[in-house]
Amino acid sequence: MVIGIDLGGTFIKAAIVDPRGRVLARMKRPTEAAMGKERVVDNVFSIVRALKAVSFSLGGISALGMGIPGVIDFRRGVISTSPNLPGWENIPIRKMLSRRVGMPLYLENDANAAALGEKWMGAAKDVQDFCFITLGTGVGGGLVLDGKIWHGADGMAGEVGHMTIDPDGPRCRCGNRGCLEMYASAKALQRMIRQVLSSGKRSRFFGEIREKEISGDVIYRAAKAGDRVSREAFARMGSALGIGIASLVNLLNLEKVVFGGGLSAAWKFFSPALRGEVKSRAFAAPARRVRIVRAAAGEDAGVLGAAYIAWQGRAGSGPAIR
Amino acid sequence: MVIGIDLGGTFIKAAIVDPRGRVLARMKRPTEAAMGKERVVDNVFSIVRALKAVSFSLGGISALGMGIPGVIDFRRGVISTSPNLPGWENIPIRKMLSRRVGMPLYLENDANAAALGEKWMGAAKDVQDFCFITLGTGVGGGLVLDGKIWHGADGMAGEVGHMTIDPDGPRCRCGNRGCLEMYASAKALQRMIRQVLSSGKRSRFFGEIREKEISGDVIYRAAKAGDRVSREAFARMGSALGIGIASLVNLLNLEKVVFGGGLSAAWKFFSPALRGEVKSRAFAAPARRVRIVRAAAGEDAGVLGAAYIAWQGRAGSGPAIR
Repeated sequence: MVIGIDLGGTFIKAAIVDPRGRVLARMKRPTEAAMGKERVVDNVFSIVRALKAVSFSLGGISALGMGIPGVIDFRRGVISTSPNLPGWENIPIRKMLSRRVGMPLYLENDANAAALGEKWMGAAKDVQDFCFITLGTGVGGGLVLDGKIWHGADGMAGEVGHMTIDPDGPRCRCGNRGCLEMYASAKALQRMIRQVLSSGKRSRFFGEIREKEISGDVIYRAAKAGDRVSREAFARMGSALGIGIASLVNLLNLEKVVFGGGLSAAWKFFSPALRGEVKSRAFAAPARRVRIVRAAAGEDAGVLGAAYIAWQGRAGSGPAIR
Repeated sequence: MVIGIDLGGTFIKAAIVDPRGRVLARMKRPTEAAMGKERVVDNVFSIVRALKAVSFSLGGISALGMGIPGVIDFRRGVISTSPNLPGWENIPIRKMLSRRVGMPLYLENDANAAALGEKWMGAAKDVQDFCFITLGTGVGGGLVLDGKIWHGADGMAGEVGHMTIDPDGPRCRCGNRGCLEMYASAKALQRMIRQVLSSGKRSRFFGEIREKEISGDVIYRAAKAGDRVSREAFARMGSALGIGIASLVNLLNLEKVVFGGGLSAAWKFFSPALRGEVKSRAFAAPARRVRIVRAAAGEDAGVLGAAYIAWQGRAGSGPAIR
């Protein structure tokens, strides 16, 4: 068995996973990122120890895989930088953990790990070439080409969220203007709702709620309850996603695009505009080819993908993936 | 030896190429596309026959490779459609030529062939992952990942020219709005010059010349002679290219982007704006990584790439490429 770990900014999730992708045990605990990196590593260690204790009846653990929200230097096993783990710069995480646990640790970027989870057990089982896009606080992505993560020269590839949608658009935290993330994330929805409200449109929901309280989830619930302002924001999000995916599809002629992340719950509010843009903007053949779907591995995608790379590292080429 | 053929809308170029990428003989003749597909095939046949006649002292010919301006069904050896060869739809070109010539024919899209020519003997010798962009009447592209052309599910990948730069931009012939091709092709330069002129700016060059006469080459010569309107058009072209390449680089973290095609001659007029946009828009590490350069295989890129796929087909894996 292997342990797959999903190291998030808020929670650490981990699971014991068998070679066929079945989750045999799972645990979750707060990351406590604010308490420093030593504490986070302690927390990962404690969850691994707890799972190891359970594992004896399951045949023991032979490797760890971990998805990390940041840029990884794969050769050295070092986290170069992480936007969600403050102060994490040049952290030799493989060395820090692997010795202490006494088994090999395989690393992957968290969006890439979730993409592999979808490939192994979710919505991308049947394809070799796809893009996984996660919609949440930001917009993350993982690109799978010929069945493998495309890392690029520095392990930085897959940043779909930072394709430019409108070169004169709002300034993104990455320094660029008009990135996809500025139209398709929870923060973007907040901004678009403020814009719609300030243009004079009324909302039963957002008249009284203060800005800070408008989470992605609140906006989704408002849309479900029929709020027009929220629905318009989701339509704009879908349209921006469609513009980006049309470029992606013209460039890579992919088989699938898979949407995960918390905001993908609002699928029915943004997917019609998304499909409309792809159809009207991309070349006919690639637009017909690409299937645009919701993720299917759910909350488990990250730990499954992490477990997959652990099996892959162990076996040299990976467990049975069709 | 093999013969590499570059089937263009205006000329057919062909060359005898040895396994080390040296051109031993070359020929060129008009395509005569307007005279129908049978005539074009006859013309290809006649150039092949002529080169074969020369080849005896060189050891004979064992295969043909051909770059074609269109979408290819690789499995069936059929040209699905070609924008530059009117009336070419579902043409079984491999069957039509290969039997008549009596040797195997390997096909590739023309921009992909030129990309392989640059990989084999030109500006991309030293990298495995790059994008080749050809600037001419339109904007074509070939994507090389892990040393191989990325074809995508339908052989349609690599259409860099049809990434969206401005979603509300001018209508492109492909149906989309604001494609890169609408800012970085000869036609785009014409349109931008008209815009600059109609905004009241004066040009010594384009006051008298009628629209139809403004070719890319004329605009380039005007820029060289100091014409401000032309220089502004090239700066806008560079800026649009930079916006597109920043997205490309965030998505694929490539080692190089190589610019070929007739308009790339105007390099010094558009590359500063291009580099500026990439630097200000792409993530720091991929922006530092990517080298943005001019093509080096020149006019031969197409026939060399075509010869390369012929050698590759013959040898199973290709000639010595570092």
